Amino acid sequence: MKKLGVAILGLGVVGGGTYKILNDNREYFKKTQGLDVTVETVLEKNIDRAVSLGIDKSQVASSIEEVVSNPNVDVVVEVIGGIEPAKTFVTKALKSGKTVVTSNKELFAKYWPELEVEAKKNKAGLFFEASCVGGVPIIRTLTEGMQGNKILSIKGIINGTTNYILTKMAHEGWSYEEALKEAQRLGYAEFNPTADVEGFDATYKLSILSSLAFNTKISIDNVHREGITSLTKEDIQYGKELGYTLKLLGIGKNTENGIEVRVHPTFVSNDNPLASVNDSFNAVHLVGDAVGEIMLYGRGAGALPTGSAIVSDVIFAGKHTDYYYASFDNSAKGNKLTKFVSDFTSQYFIRLSVKDSAGVLSKISGLFAKNNVSIKEVKQVSEKEGKVPVVIITHLCPESAVKKAIEKIKSLDAVFSCDSVIRLED
Amino acid sequence: MKKLGVAILGLGVVGGGTYKILNDNREYFKKTQGLDVTVETVLEKNIDRAVSLGIDKSQVASSIEEVVSNPNVDVVVEVIGGIEPAKTFVTKALKSGKTVVTSNKELFAKYWPELEVEAKKNKAGLFFEASCVGGVPIIRTLTEGMQGNKILSIKGIINGTTNYILTKMAHEGWSYEEALKEAQRLGYAEFNPTADVEGFDATYKLSILSSLAFNTKISIDNVHREGITSLTKEDIQYGKELGYTLKLLGIGKNTENGIEVRVHPTFVSNDNPLASVNDSFNAVHLVGDAVGEIMLYGRGAGALPTGSAIVSDVIFAGKHTDYYYASFDNSAKGNKLTKFVSDFTSQYFIRLSVKDSAGVLSKISGLFAKNNVSIKEVKQVSEKEGKVPVVIITHLCPESAVKKAIEKIKSLDAVFSCDSVIRLED
Repeated sequence: MKKLGVAILGLGVVGGGTYKILNDNREYFKKTQGLDVTVETVLEKNIDRAVSLGIDKSQVASSIEEVVSNPNVDVVVEVIGGIEPAKTFVTKALKSGKTVVTSNKELFAKYWPELEVEAKKNKAGLFFEASCVGGVPIIRTLTEGMQGNKILSIKGIINGTTNYILTKMAHEGWSYEEALKEAQRLGYAEFNPTADVEGFDATYKLSILSSLAFNTKISIDNVHREGITSLTKEDIQYGKELGYTLKLLGIGKNTENGIEVRVHPTFVSNDNPLASVNDSFNAVHLVGDAVGEIMLYGRGAGALPTGSAIVSDVIFAGKHTDYYYASFDNSAKGNKLTKFVSDFTSQYFIRLSVKDSAGVLSKISGLFAKNNVSIKEVKQVSEKEGKVPVVIITHLCPESAVKKAIEKIKSLDAVFSCDSVIRLED
Repeated sequence: MKKLGVAILGLGVVGGGTYKILNDNREYFKKTQGLDVTVETVLEKNIDRAVSLGIDKSQVASSIEEVVSNPNVDVVVEVIGGIEPAKTFVTKALKSGKTVVTSNKELFAKYWPELEVEAKKNKAGLFFEASCVGGVPIIRTLTEGMQGNKILSIKGIINGTTNYILTKMAHEGWSYEEALKEAQRLGYAEFNPTADVEGFDATYKLSILSSLAFNTKISIDNVHREGITSLTKEDIQYGKELGYTLKLLGIGKNTENGIEVRVHPTFVSNDNPLASVNDSFNAVHLVGDAVGEIMLYGRGAGALPTGSAIVSDVIFAGKHTDYYYASFDNSAKGNKLTKFVSDFTSQYFIRLSVKDSAGVLSKISGLFAKNNVSIKEVKQVSEKEGKVPVVIITHLCPESAVKKAIEKIKSLDAVFSCDSVIRLED
C-alpha cells in the first residue's frame, strides 16, 4: 500500500482538527483510498498542545528545516495563518519538493503567484481547498467539476462571522453591536473583528475564487470592498418587508464589458437560494454557461470542516500526480491583461428621510428618471410626524447614474437625508 | 499540447448538448485545460440529426466496431440510455482500452460491477458523473472532495420530474394528475412517466450515490422504493400548515444498526435547505463526520447541464491517469457483507378521518402511547359535519411500531379511515 507522510505546521484550531481526522481515520483511509496516511511530524512551539492531542514529544520538530529535510514527509500542511512565518515555511517546503496543502487565504490571496512558481519549479503540488469556504469543496468544483463551463458569475456568502451577525440582526432584531458581541462570546468573531466585518477575509477568498472561475488573475486590489459595520436594523427590517434579505456577498461577474469583483452588503430576493443561508453557514452560487445555476452550501469554518478540506487535499495529492496549476498568467502582470469594470451595474435599495408633504415623491422620482434610473418599487412609511422614511428599489442601472441622482435628490428642500444605499440582487 | 479524441454514442438531447459544449468551447479548453479535445466520430442512426448539429457525414460511424477501432478515439461517451445496445457498446469500448464516460444511470446501477471489471482489466477509465443529478458535481464531491469524511447520511431531491410535480401541487394547489399533465406538456415528464413517478430513476441514482457515500455495494434491490402517484393536495396542504414541504427524497443513512436506503415521499421541515429546492431543480444534502452538513444544488437534467457533467468527466479523464475505481467489493457478493436495516426509524405524518365527537383524540393518542409511538404535534380541523381530518406528527420511532398502532387505531369505532402515512425529516 502506498504510504503518504504528512507534516502539520501549527496546531491551532484547524491544525488540531486536521490531526484528529488523519489520526482517527487512518484505517478508514487505508480501506477506502488505498493510502496509508501518517502524521510524521508537527511544528508547534507549544509542546503541551501537541501532547494534549496525543502526539509524542519526539514527533514535534524543532525547526522548519527539520520538517522539510525529513524524507518521510511527502505533504506539508500549513495551518499557521497570516503571512509570516507561514510564507517562509511554505516556500522552504516547496523548495524541498514537498507538496503543500494550505488553509491560509491571506497568504494565498497575496502570494499565490510566487508560491506557484516555486511549486512548478520543484514539481510539487500546491493545494488550497481549505483557504476558501472551509469544508465546502468549491475549489475542487471549480478546478475538477465545472471545467466544461465558462463561468458567468459567482456570488457567495463566504464569511461566516458576518453571516451570523446579519442573521441575528434579521431574526432577533438585534443591533450590529449586539450581534457582534454575541458572535465574539461564541468565538465566531475575533476580539478585533476587522478582518471579518470590514470584508477583508471575504476579499481574500473572492480574489482566489474569481481567479479560478474566470481563468484570469484577480488580485485583492481588483476587489471593491465594503464591510457591514454601518448597517442598521432599520434597513434590514425595511428590506424584509419588501421581500429581501441582507447578506454580505462576494460577487464576481464576467460580462461583455469586463470583469467586476466586489464584496459588499447586498439585499437578495427571498427567492434566491442564498437568502436562506443562515447563521455561520456559507454558500457559493455559480452560473456556468452550460450547467446554469449551481449552489454549494456548508460550514465555512471550524476545526473539522476546514480539516475535512485539508484532508481531502492531502488524499488528492496522494492519489494524483498531475497537480493543478493556474492555467492563466498568474502574476501581477496578469492583471494588466484583464479589463475590469468599475461602474457597477446593479439594482439599488435607497432609503431617504423626507418631509411628509404632498409632491415629494413626484419630485424624487422625477430626478431618478432624469438620471436614467428606473424605479422598481417604492415604500413610504408614515411613522414620524413631519419626517418619514421612503425606501426605493431601482431596476438595474449604472452606479454612476444612481450617485448622480442621489446628489440631486439630497439637495431637494423636502429631503432631510439619504440614509442608506445598498446594492440588491434578485 | 495533449490531444484528446472523443466519440459520442447517441445524439439525443444529452449527446447533442455534449457535442455543442465540446465543439463551441474547443479553444477555451485549449487555453484553460491545456487539452485539445476533438469529437472524432459519432455513432447515430439518424444521420440528419448529426448533420443538423454541424457534424460532417464522414464523421458518422457505421458501427461500434468502427468507433472502438479508431486509434484517434481516447474517450467514448455513451449517452444512449437504457440497457441495450448501450451495455454492449460500453463493454466493447472498455475491451478496446477506451475510457468510457456515461450518463446512463440505469446501466450503471444495474451493471457497474461487470463494467468496472472490464475497465480495470483494460486499464480504462469509467466515469459516471452525469449518471446522477445532471450538472451537479456530486460524484466528484464524493470521490475527490469529501474523502476525509465518513459519510453519515445522504438525502437528495434527485429526480426533477417529481420535484416539478410536487412543487406545482404545493404552490398552485394542482392535483397530481394536473401537475403531471403540465410536466408532460413541458417535456419534463415522459409520455409513460413510470420511471420517474414510481421512483425507479431516483432508485438507480440512490444506489450509485449511497454506494459511494458508504463505501459498500448497494444494489437497487437494497433500496426501498415508493413513488408519488398516490399523494394528494390535501396532504400537501396540511403539511404546509404545520411547516413542512413534501418532496420525493432519496435517503441513505449509515447507522449503528446498519445501512438504510430508501426512496419515498417525505415531508421536510421548512428550515431544512431541501424544502426550498423547487421546480425541476435537484439537491443533495450530505452529513460527513468531519465536515458536518453540506448541500449541492443545481439542474438535475437537460442537454447542457448533463453535458456539463460529461465534459467535466472527459477533461478529468484527459488530465488524470489514476482513474477512480470503487474501493469496496463492487459485486453482488458485496451485498452480503453489508447489514441493511428494514425497520426504518423515522418521524411520521399520519392523516386520519375521525368522527367529530368527544374523547376520540384521547383514544387515538392512548393507542399511539401504548405502542411506544410518541406524538410531537396534532392538528384537528373541524370542516365536515361529523367527519373531521386529524393530522398527527410523531417523534422518531420504528416503522413497525407505527404500523401496529395504526392497525389498532383503524379498528376504533370513531375512526373512519387512515388516509395517509408519510415519513418526515426535520
